[in-house]
Amino acid sequence: MAKKKSEPKAKKPTTDAKRADAKGSATEPLLGSDASDLLRVKLGFDLAAVDPRSTPGFAGGKTEGQEQLDAGTEELADLQERLFAASKGGAPESVLLVLQAMDTAGKGGIVRHVVGAVDPQGVALTAFKAPTAEELRHSFLWRVRRKLPTPGLIGVFDRSHYEDVLVHRVRRLTPLETIEKRYEQINAFERQTAAAGTRIVKVMLHISPEEQKARLAERLERPDKHWKYRPGDLDDRALWPDFQQAYQIALDRTSTELAPWHVVPADRKWYARLAVQHLLLQTLRGIDPQWPAADFDVEKEKKRLAGL
Amino acid sequence: MAKKKSEPKAKKPTTDAKRADAKGSATEPLLGSDASDLLRVKLGFDLAAVDPRSTPGFAGGKTEGQEQLDAGTEELADLQERLFAASKGGAPESVLLVLQAMDTAGKGGIVRHVVGAVDPQGVALTAFKAPTAEELRHSFLWRVRRKLPTPGLIGVFDRSHYEDVLVHRVRRLTPLETIEKRYEQINAFERQTAAAGTRIVKVMLHISPEEQKARLAERLERPDKHWKYRPGDLDDRALWPDFQQAYQIALDRTSTELAPWHVVPADRKWYARLAVQHLLLQTLRGIDPQWPAADFDVEKEKKRLAGL
Repeated sequence: MAKKKSEPKAKKPTTDAKRADAKGSATEPLLGSDASDLLRVKLGFDLAAVDPRSTPGFAGGKTEGQEQLDAGTEELADLQERLFAASKGGAPESVLLVLQAMDTAGKGGIVRHVVGAVDPQGVALTAFKAPTAEELRHSFLWRVRRKLPTPGLIGVFDRSHYEDVLVHRVRRLTPLETIEKRYEQINAFERQTAAAGTRIVKVMLHISPEEQKARLAERLERPDKHWKYRPGDLDDRALWPDFQQAYQIALDRTSTELAPWHVVPADRKWYARLAVQHLLLQTLRGIDPQWPAADFDVEKEKKRLAGL
Repeated sequence: MAKKKSEPKAKKPTTDAKRADAKGSATEPLLGSDASDLLRVKLGFDLAAVDPRSTPGFAGGKTEGQEQLDAGTEELADLQERLFAASKGGAPESVLLVLQAMDTAGKGGIVRHVVGAVDPQGVALTAFKAPTAEELRHSFLWRVRRKLPTPGLIGVFDRSHYEDVLVHRVRRLTPLETIEKRYEQINAFERQTAAAGTRIVKVMLHISPEEQKARLAERLERPDKHWKYRPGDLDDRALWPDFQQAYQIALDRTSTELAPWHVVPADRKWYARLAVQHLLLQTLRGIDPQWPAADFDVEKEKKRLAGL
């Protein structure tokens, strides 16, 4: 029942040639700068047409993908340090990575293997669980706003305010007319956040139900994975089509110029990690953070130091 | 003026043979399990006798030290995951690493290179700055207590409640009689914290004034390091003997059975990182966290999954 995920598998034909067709040449299997464009949710986007096993923008296999991931960590760490340093000089920029996905899609692996490659002092990670009693007394955006990254930081949301239009829609935890208003509230909130200097990178990790079944089966097979399994995961799984529909609506309504969604095929963990690293790299390159100028008299300090 | 830190330097004779004399044999330059004992602050400890360039318990050089650091990351990451998992099964244990040091001693490097090797989802890092107006309205332990790691986490304090008996003593920010009471308040607080399941690892990174001068000079030489430099660093440097005395007193008064201090020579960054990794490894091995048993019926869940 459990597929062995680590075995190389033949690449299945993809259902969406435009997205899945690798743009890199066979001799240069790099994830090109067009990958973020390939992954971005635009007008007319169809989630059902995205093959979760595809590797948009990347012609290589697992080995090349892992090599490129390793190769990218140094630049990512350097850009993160520059972002952090620039904020000490007054630069307002920060980055916010929003991760949403069905269970087992690999959010944790992204945090560990992509975000985990940079200095933890530059990262503000928040895993949003079911809201507390205090949080429920406020607007659904209240707890999220409090966790926005301050200048210089890379914020990561493991789940987010999107739960309030995803699981709330599927499980009818909130009246539909309230949910309908939330999309625009989210857009306004994200516009405000972007205007303050936060570059928002929203990622849906897109896994297939078959791959989820294999991953859940593995968690049930291995005693060292039992702690990751929740019987509630299967309740969500039973509502798969409803969740996909809720995602489609959220993607349609909240993929904006300033805060676009990216749907990252996630049946191949190595690809998803590479793609998210790429999105972060592109975002940070876009900021192009600079070392700040000294706000003190360097020569004077050198003289003081020499005398001490 | 700036020494190039990366150049190999001749090993200076050490002032404290008992500490600096490597216990490992020349053919097996490993940091032995006795290293934490060598570094621990015991009755009669004399800070001035610790050579900041020594490498207690380690007979190898920089290359071997870096190799052993790399070799330890996998075990550290595995133990951290087990600690995290065990808490899901109700285990109360957590770890708290307290880092104190003079400026430039390498606290940031410890966080990046030692703590940064484990899953960021399992780490709760707090850098304590000058207290805010709200924090000043409470006891000096108030803000610290709120940042203690919850079960399963490795908490890291970059500076801590010890600032309230170090800089406060040196700069007379608090009356001496109040400071005298704080040592016992700290011990009581740490006893309470340990009793709740938190293993406390306190580390003073011990740097020499010469090495600090070289590191500050480098920050002044390199425009990409200016942001790390604060003119206030020199004000502290001018009070070096006072700070050393305040450390000696704090170490004497607060190195306890349940929350011992370790003085880690830090002129060689590679050694300090290796030593702190070792202290974390020993602490986690002592906890010996186990994968928790499933709190659900595994066979029943397998059947449910098969049908979905």
